[in-house]
Amino acid sequence: MPRSGAEARRRLQQAALELYRERGFDQTTTAEIAARAGVNERTFFRHFPDKREVLFDGEAELRAALEQAVAEAPEGLRVLDLLLHAFRAVRHVIERNRPFAEPRTRLIAATPALRERELAKGASITEAVAEALRKRGVPDRYALLAAQTGWAAFAQAYTAWIADSSRSLDEHLLQAFADLRALVTSATTGDSGR
Amino acid sequence: MPRSGAEARRRLQQAALELYRERGFDQTTTAEIAARAGVNERTFFRHFPDKREVLFDGEAELRAALEQAVAEAPEGLRVLDLLLHAFRAVRHVIERNRPFAEPRTRLIAATPALRERELAKGASITEAVAEALRKRGVPDRYALLAAQTGWAAFAQAYTAWIADSSRSLDEHLLQAFADLRALVTSATTGDSGR
Repeated sequence: MPRSGAEARRRLQQAALELYRERGFDQTTTAEIAARAGVNERTFFRHFPDKREVLFDGEAELRAALEQAVAEAPEGLRVLDLLLHAFRAVRHVIERNRPFAEPRTRLIAATPALRERELAKGASITEAVAEALRKRGVPDRYALLAAQTGWAAFAQAYTAWIADSSRSLDEHLLQAFADLRALVTSATTGDSGR
Repeated sequence: MPRSGAEARRRLQQAALELYRERGFDQTTTAEIAARAGVNERTFFRHFPDKREVLFDGEAELRAALEQAVAEAPEGLRVLDLLLHAFRAVRHVIERNRPFAEPRTRLIAATPALRERELAKGASITEAVAEALRKRGVPDRYALLAAQTGWAAFAQAYTAWIADSSRSLDEHLLQAFADLRALVTSATTGDSGR
């Protein structure tokens, strides 16, 4: 039996991910996840409300870290540069879960119930970031648009990092935000990226 | 009994929206919707697979119209300008449903199951738009980012139009894409929008 709560939690996540890949998400029960992790089912439910949430453990932490990073970013930045600054500041929260990231991403892409949950996560985080921007004095009509645009660039960087870990998440973030700038200011159909 | 299929469909949508607002989405059955529309429940299921889909009727049409508009947009535009062009070209698809738009938007915002469906709609349309951009020669790493960014600007325009119909959807689209440009190139924290 794992001794600490954090250790049980990590083992439950590992076990869930293995079982989802072996049998499919729909075919796996919480009892089976608990058994593989060497804990009982009550322990599972002490850590997670259901088998979907096992894969979305970092959401609250990432949201809180981003809110703080937006609040603490330097004055005078352009709004998109402020968001780039914030995503760079919280990248350790994401890098820490790198071993899970690739199988998790593939599983989500292949499972409709998990894709919906992933979209809800994106919406929840962009709303929190928009609110943090408003508190920094960014007007309403820019705040949500900026948060959604920044999240799209982050998602692009994250996907690129999963596919190509020879470059750091930080490098992929810089690239994605540069791409975003190019899209608005210079990239034209048929010659974008040249 | 409504005579044509299109008329029954419209009445079912109207009845569903009324009942969802009066009783809540979860408390309304398909039988009640059919009764209020003056048709039987079989007719409901001939038009819609479930009570959620009644509110998302225009999705396939909007997606197809956007794909076509991207394919037919002029050469040599910047990618974001091409998307603005495409959204302006399909605005009649959206304007046609203006009478439903306000109550529908409020209902979705207040109902988690409908919000998830709305997010899935956004994801499905952005993927289709990204694919249409790739066919126009926009490289992979720009295509999805552009589609998501354009969709965020469209969503902003749509929300603004619901709140302020003294200006046309077209004016709101021009404004939202101008805001997007400003976010990337000039708006800074605390003085955005001046």
